[in-house]
Amino acid sequence: MATEADAHAMRRAIALAARGLGSTSPNPVVGCVVLDASGHQVGEGWHQRAGGPHAEVHALRQAGVLARGGTAYVTLEPCDHTGRTGPCAQALIDAGIARVVYAVGDPDPRATGGAGTLRAAGVEVVAGVLADEAEAGNAAWLTSVRLGRPYVLWKYAAGLDGRIAAADGTSRWISSPESRADVHRLRAEADAVIVGSGTARADDPHLAVRGIEGAVQPLRVVVDTEATAVRPGARVLDDAGPTLVAVAEDAETDLPDVVRLPRAGRGLSVPALLDALHARGVRSVLLEGGPTLAGSFVAAGAVDKVVGYLAPVLLGAGPAALADAGITTLTDALRLHVSETVRIGPDLRVTAVPVPTPKEH
Amino acid sequence: MATEADAHAMRRAIALAARGLGSTSPNPVVGCVVLDASGHQVGEGWHQRAGGPHAEVHALRQAGVLARGGTAYVTLEPCDHTGRTGPCAQALIDAGIARVVYAVGDPDPRATGGAGTLRAAGVEVVAGVLADEAEAGNAAWLTSVRLGRPYVLWKYAAGLDGRIAAADGTSRWISSPESRADVHRLRAEADAVIVGSGTARADDPHLAVRGIEGAVQPLRVVVDTEATAVRPGARVLDDAGPTLVAVAEDAETDLPDVVRLPRAGRGLSVPALLDALHARGVRSVLLEGGPTLAGSFVAAGAVDKVVGYLAPVLLGAGPAALADAGITTLTDALRLHVSETVRIGPDLRVTAVPVPTPKEH
Repeated sequence: MATEADAHAMRRAIALAARGLGSTSPNPVVGCVVLDASGHQVGEGWHQRAGGPHAEVHALRQAGVLARGGTAYVTLEPCDHTGRTGPCAQALIDAGIARVVYAVGDPDPRATGGAGTLRAAGVEVVAGVLADEAEAGNAAWLTSVRLGRPYVLWKYAAGLDGRIAAADGTSRWISSPESRADVHRLRAEADAVIVGSGTARADDPHLAVRGIEGAVQPLRVVVDTEATAVRPGARVLDDAGPTLVAVAEDAETDLPDVVRLPRAGRGLSVPALLDALHARGVRSVLLEGGPTLAGSFVAAGAVDKVVGYLAPVLLGAGPAALADAGITTLTDALRLHVSETVRIGPDLRVTAVPVPTPKEH
Repeated sequence: MATEADAHAMRRAIALAARGLGSTSPNPVVGCVVLDASGHQVGEGWHQRAGGPHAEVHALRQAGVLARGGTAYVTLEPCDHTGRTGPCAQALIDAGIARVVYAVGDPDPRATGGAGTLRAAGVEVVAGVLADEAEAGNAAWLTSVRLGRPYVLWKYAAGLDGRIAAADGTSRWISSPESRADVHRLRAEADAVIVGSGTARADDPHLAVRGIEGAVQPLRVVVDTEATAVRPGARVLDDAGPTLVAVAEDAETDLPDVVRLPRAGRGLSVPALLDALHARGVRSVLLEGGPTLAGSFVAAGAVDKVVGYLAPVLLGAGPAALADAGITTLTDALRLHVSETVRIGPDLRVTAVPVPTPKEH
C-alpha cells in the first residue's frame, strides 16, 4: 500500500532524477530518497553520469547505518545486474533496507528482476507509485529502450503564421532571448542536437550549450548528405563539444569524423541515422533542423515530441516550419495532443506529442 | 475619489455593456448600474440596439424614485446630445442622481460634454474608474471613432506549422467543433464578416451566426474583385442575413447588392472597402478571409487584433495563414503582443494585437 508520505518522498526522487537529464546516457535518469525506520529522510541522490554510482548508491552512502530498517524510494526499479557498477538490489539488501518503493518497472531486459531479488530477500516491495510522473521524467530513455532508437524532440521557432524566416531568408532573431535561452536548456538535456545542411549553410550554427553551468555538451550532428554544407572552419567543428557529420555513402569529403549513411528520397535515411546514433549511446535527440529535415523525420514517424516557440510576429512570406512530410490531405495530417503551453518572454512555447493513429494500434 | 464599491459597481456595468456587442452599431456598447443613496443596487441596464434606449435610461427606469440621491455608474461618459433618444446627462439630472461615475470619456464630438452638463447641475462627477477594462470592452467602437474606419479583427485557423489547408486544399475541419463554435461568437459580436474570393470559391461559406440565441446577423461581405466567385445560389446569398459583394469598378456582374470599389494591387483597395463599410454604419469587422485577403489587410495596416485558432496538427505542405503582406525581411515583420492564450477544446486560441512601430510614433 502506498501512502501520502510515499508520494511525497517519490516526488522528491523524481525531482532529483531530472537533474541527470542530458548526462546519463545511455543510462536512464534515476532519483532515490531514503527514509529511516521512523520516516525521516536520511539520504538522497541521483544518477549523475554513466559509469558513476547509481542513485541508490548515492542515497545509501548518505544514509549510512540510518538506512537499516528504512524505506528506499526509487524512480525506476532497482537494477539486478552488474554493469560498470554492482547491482542496486543487492546494495539495498546489504544496507538493511526493509521496504523499497519504486515508480516504473525497468524495461531493459538486462537490468530487470531487481524487484524479485528484493522480495526473495524479504524486502517489502511496492511498485507503481507516481508512475505517470516518473515515466514522463524518463520519457526519452524509456522511449529509446522500447523503440530501439533515440527519442526525438523536434524544436522550431516561428511566427504566428508558421514561418521560420522572412522572404529574404532573415531569421535572426524571430524568437526572443528568453526562448533562445530555453533552447539551450533543451540542448543540455539532449544527448545529441541535429541540424540539416540548409541550416548549416545558412546559419553556420555552433549548436553548443551556453549559459548552463555543468551542462554536458551534446553531440552536434549535421545531416550533410552531399558533404557540401560543413566546410573546414565551420563553427560546429570547434572543440566546444563532439561533432558528427552524416553524409551519403557516395559523398566525397575530407572531414575527419563522418558517418556514411544510405540515401533516402532527397536526403539520408532517417532510420539509418537514428540507428547510427543509438549505436553511439545517444538516447535522446533535439532536432533543430530546418523544415526539410523536420519533414523527413515526420515522414519517417520519428518525432516523439514537438516544442514550438511561437513568436508574436506575422511575415506573410518565407518558409514554413515544416516542409514535405509526405502529407497531401487533411485526414493524413500528423495529429498531436498539446501537453503544455507557457509564455516564454513575449513568445508562446507549445509542447505537443503525436496522438497514436488508429493504424498504429 | 473612487472607492472599492465604485470599482465593484463599474465592473458589473462593464459586464452588462458586453451583452450589446454586435447589436448596437453604429453606437458603442454601454452598461449602467444605479445604486441608491445608501449604496444598494436598484437598477441596471445596457444599450441593446441602435435607436433603442441608452443604458442609463434602462437603469433609471428600473430604479424609479430610488435613484434620487444615488450614484450612477456608466462605462462611457453620458451623452449630451439628442439623437434618436434624448440626452442621458439630462435624464440623470432629472432622476435626481447625486453622483455619476464613468469609465471612459466619449470621443464622439457630437456626444461629448455630458460630464460638464452634469457638473453644472451640481452632480458630482468621477471619471476614469476601470478605464482600461471599459476601454477594452469597447475597443471596436473606440477604434472606429478614432480612426474613422471599422475595427478589424483577423481570425484564422491553422495547424502548428501555420498551414490552413493541406496540399490538396482540404481544410475541413482543421480546427475543432469547440473552436468553430467560438468563431460564431466572434461573428455575433461583429457588424460584418469578410471573406475573399478564394474562400468564397473553395468553401461556398454561409457566414451566418448559428447557435447563439438572439444574435444579430452580421453583414456578410465577399471581396470578389472580378465578380466571378459569388454565383447565384451561393449560400452567402440566402436570407439568413444581409450580404454585400464588393467588386472592382470595371467588373461585370448581375448580382443585386454589390459595391464597386477601386482596384489596388491584385485585389480591391482595402481603405476604400473599409470606407464603404463605415458609411453603412459598420463599426467592427471580423476578417475571415484567406491568406491573400488577410495579406492585403496587413499590408494596409488595417488589422487591429488577431485571433488564431491553432489546431494541434502538422501538415508540412499547403497554404500558410498569411500571404503576401508586403513584408520581405524580418525587421519589417508585423510585431504583435500576445494578450491572451486559451485552450479551446484540443486547440489553442491565441489573441494578439499589433505593437505600434517606432515609425508610427
